[in-house]
Amino acid sequence: MQKITILIHCKDQKNIIASVTTFIAQVGGNITYIDQHVDVEQNVFFMRLECEFANSEITIESFKADFDKTLASKFDMSWDLYSQEQKPKMALFVSKYDHCLFDILGRYSAGELNIEIPVIISNHNDLRWIAERFDIPFHLVPFTKDNKDEGEAKQIELLKEYEIDFIVLARYMQIITPKLISLYENRIINIHHSFLPAFPGAKPYHSAFKRGVKIIGATSHYVTEELDEGPIIEQDIARVSHIHSVEDFIMKGRDLERIVLARAIKLHAERKTMVYSNKTVVFS
Amino acid sequence: MQKITILIHCKDQKNIIASVTTFIAQVGGNITYIDQHVDVEQNVFFMRLECEFANSEITIESFKADFDKTLASKFDMSWDLYSQEQKPKMALFVSKYDHCLFDILGRYSAGELNIEIPVIISNHNDLRWIAERFDIPFHLVPFTKDNKDEGEAKQIELLKEYEIDFIVLARYMQIITPKLISLYENRIINIHHSFLPAFPGAKPYHSAFKRGVKIIGATSHYVTEELDEGPIIEQDIARVSHIHSVEDFIMKGRDLERIVLARAIKLHAERKTMVYSNKTVVFS
Amino acid sequence: MQKITILIHCKDQKNIIASVTTFIAQVGGNITYIDQHVDVEQNVFFMRLECEFANSEITIESFKADFDKTLASKFDMSWDLYSQEQKPKMALFVSKYDHCLFDILGRYSAGELNIEIPVIISNHNDLRWIAERFDIPFHLVPFTKDNKDEGEAKQIELLKEYEIDFIVLARYMQIITPKLISLYENRIINIHHSFLPAFPGAKPYHSAFKRGVKIIGATSHYVTEELDEGPIIEQDIARVSHIHSVEDFIMKGRDLERIVLARAIKLHAERKTMVYSNKTVVFS
Amino acid sequence: MQKITILIHCKDQKNIIASVTTFIAQVGGNITYIDQHVDVEQNVFFMRLECEFANSEITIESFKADFDKTLASKFDMSWDLYSQEQKPKMALFVSKYDHCLFDILGRYSAGELNIEIPVIISNHNDLRWIAERFDIPFHLVPFTKDNKDEGEAKQIELLKEYEIDFIVLARYMQIITPKLISLYENRIINIHHSFLPAFPGAKPYHSAFKRGVKIIGATSHYVTEELDEGPIIEQDIARVSHIHSVEDFIMKGRDLERIVLARAIKLHAERKTMVYSNKTVVFS
Repeated sequence: MQKITILIHCKDQKNIIASVTTFIAQVGGNITYIDQHVDVEQNVFFMRLECEFANSEITIESFKADFDKTLASKFDMSWDLYSQEQKPKMALFVSKYDHCLFDILGRYSAGELNIEIPVIISNHNDLRWIAERFDIPFHLVPFTKDNKDEGEAKQIELLKEYEIDFIVLARYMQIITPKLISLYENRIINIHHSFLPAFPGAKPYHSAFKRGVKIIGATSHYVTEELDEGPIIEQDIARVSHIHSVEDFIMKGRDLERIVLARAIKLHAERKTMVYSNKTVVFS
Repeated sequence: MQKITILIHCKDQKNIIASVTTFIAQVGGNITYIDQHVDVEQNVFFMRLECEFANSEITIESFKADFDKTLASKFDMSWDLYSQEQKPKMALFVSKYDHCLFDILGRYSAGELNIEIPVIISNHNDLRWIAERFDIPFHLVPFTKDNKDEGEAKQIELLKEYEIDFIVLARYMQIITPKLISLYENRIINIHHSFLPAFPGAKPYHSAFKRGVKIIGATSHYVTEELDEGPIIEQDIARVSHIHSVEDFIMKGRDLERIVLARAIKLHAERKTMVYSNKTVVFS
Repeated sequence: MQKITILIHCKDQKNIIASVTTFIAQVGGNITYIDQHVDVEQNVFFMRLECEFANSEITIESFKADFDKTLASKFDMSWDLYSQEQKPKMALFVSKYDHCLFDILGRYSAGELNIEIPVIISNHNDLRWIAERFDIPFHLVPFTKDNKDEGEAKQIELLKEYEIDFIVLARYMQIITPKLISLYENRIINIHHSFLPAFPGAKPYHSAFKRGVKIIGATSHYVTEELDEGPIIEQDIARVSHIHSVEDFIMKGRDLERIVLARAIKLHAERKTMVYSNKTVVFS
Repeated sequence: MQKITILIHCKDQKNIIASVTTFIAQVGGNITYIDQHVDVEQNVFFMRLECEFANSEITIESFKADFDKTLASKFDMSWDLYSQEQKPKMALFVSKYDHCLFDILGRYSAGELNIEIPVIISNHNDLRWIAERFDIPFHLVPFTKDNKDEGEAKQIELLKEYEIDFIVLARYMQIITPKLISLYENRIINIHHSFLPAFPGAKPYHSAFKRGVKIIGATSHYVTEELDEGPIIEQDIARVSHIHSVEDFIMKGRDLERIVLARAIKLHAERKTMVYSNKTVVFS
């Protein structure tokens, strides 16, 4: 065990910080980064730590057992531990839009994302050629009203086969089933092409154009059963004016979608996001 | 007649630009600025011109008559002419919030706004002292459900008395009556403390906080009978995160409100806005 | 001849706008977009027009001849005419950094850029595989102090062979020779990884980190003989703080470089930029 | 003693966080906020804590003595403690520009700034009327080449008389003497009207206009003996284009100056800034 990231949340109580930091010190760890937050209204405490264990004999298993016994039970914590050496495995769900796919694969190839992308799943064959260019397995999983159960079963089978940690919907444009959502709770990231909660649903650029807004946006969020209502991870905006047509909105929006989604992937992969009350704490 | 600004809109037709620019040249004017826009979808043409008439004997009246006869009737134009020498007169409606009032009067005193502010009207006495500090007449016009007619009558009387060209609601927090709206169509500017159309109505910062957005905004728009649905003039945004409380949202929002409202006032005063289909063309 | 774009600049004079718009109308064209600017200080007039010639028999050659005779000589104009049907041909110069190359080719493949990319030229073989993935001819042209003349000759030969209209240096990292600059005056676009004029030269992210700035930037500009001093086309920025290392600056900067360069390419390809006094007029 | 803020910096060492948090817990305090940073390159550790002492009998004096003995000496810390109940006292230095002064006094009157402003000092009488409107003592302290010593002496006398904690130069436009800088090290805040380090010195808007930049900025920094080279606290930017004159740059810049300076004042007043190596750590 060398470098780990720990995420904790629990009811806010006295002396949590002191207790956790003392524990880490006692087992031979050095805290290299600490972030903490208290939601005063809801009385919830959040913490993210990065620790190094140089020359320590402690294993992840014994650390976990100790932490559970000593701290987690005492403060009634929900907590997770991640080795920084292990890259999370991300599945890409795509449909027909290629700009987010190109952007993610470009970043991936350029070594910008500390993840693995073992598989791309799509309900159409249109983007297969891109997957092939980047040497990533591409699976066609048709998904319509009529074959929902079959499609879902195939998706889940592939996610298991490739040992997927989290899913990114790169303009996938299809409903994700409740079963898949519950299997990957807070681990499915979507990019919505509007500044949520403005313009939810389909054709947001058309609605934004009609309303005459001066700023458009994009929103990356975790997928929940309520469409476009999941916890927001990241948002960004671009200015528009009367000179821009709906097509211009769409074109400007593509840049927003690319960047907002890429940022959300990075934050999730680095374990910098925590979810509660349908909101996120993002330690960035 | 020296420097004028002309605003034109009409159905898009061939040769409008050539016809208008030729007319100006023929009557001895020099075009110093031209802006034009075509809404392709709705087939509407918009134009804004600034012209100088050095050594020209032409009067505004004869120019207007000529323009109407030669061009406006031919192309079925709606058009307006403004002398750049005349400062528009703006009435400020306020209630209890002081930050937009301070900002506008600070800019006004610093000579940043090419307007006159002959009167401040409020439904409360709380901000009278600020008006007095800046030597601007302050009128208390109570406005409640029970005295709506009386309040409206008093407002209109004051607007006439001070020869008001346009009205700015600097966080006025009261409904404007349909009669007043129709008297000042597209000449009442409101500042809404959210990124419309997200979070319309009251307490938008609380709603934004609850939804967990990562960006908040403010919107300046012309007032129409549909609450918070009028044509948007200007918007801007600020980043927020989990560390910010509702109070932080409100505080950050105040800066947005100040700046977005100040920009909208400037654009309107310089005749750079045109309204159609519940949207604005802003030549900036 | 169907749709054309015209760029004009000359000494500011009375009645230019009226004269040009009347001319277009007389030869059967309809102006669909007009943008104009006067640099008051230097007394220079700029204009960009988009015109349609439906059912017109006029050829580009006769239009050019007429315009020259009737207008250009009278007002002493510099002017250019571009058919909107012809896509400009862009050569990409790259070296070892791949993020801008991936981004441009992703956009190109996604149909976002109205250009052709017939060739990629590099002084290293590192990025050859990317060019091959996107089926674009890749030429290795070594370029060092010792082979400058030979390298320049080879570059120019390739540019002629592929009939290149403009060059984009996608983090090319090599000096462009004065001869090549003069052959492609105001047609070589560079991306500099700082907010010029701050931090010119090499290692700007390191300098920015050392100075403790809170905002970093990227700058796209036309290449002139003065290094990093050419006319700026586009800039953008990103916030940084004490938590970011030099490596974080570089990573955030990559997103800026991608977007700023992509915007500059688009503006140039759509003939929206004009250069004078080492500055640009950008009609966007 | 109820609510305190502690700022610590020292050489990075193992177990600092655990030691400090344990100490606070042992003396009956509850940590409500913790921020920490390590400059890996220079091996410096920074920490900011907010603590509450409900029902604790401990005094600030005994806490300080204990902390010094137990921790500060052991880790060789530089540290400061501030009571959150005490508002810092800020002196405003102004000259002839009024926009920052109006903005600060507007915010101050609106209760946005948790400070006291007991005095305004100026080398001209131009802005005296504004100070009087806001009922703040105004002192004329002429400051020229010829009376530098006298001026400095008078300034220092006033700062002592009003027990000033920190100084804000709201476009003061005069050199601050080395003696005054050393008396108020890292406690004099200046607003520079450019995106430093671009365009240092006088007339930055003119230089920015000449260079043809597409973005202008403003920078708030602590004053050091090197002009415009002190540690940067906050920066922000605004877009400009060819349509903007130098006067437009200045007008847009005023909004930047207002906001950037207001943010820096707030950060400093809330003890969220720490200075080292001519840079700032800003815990915001």
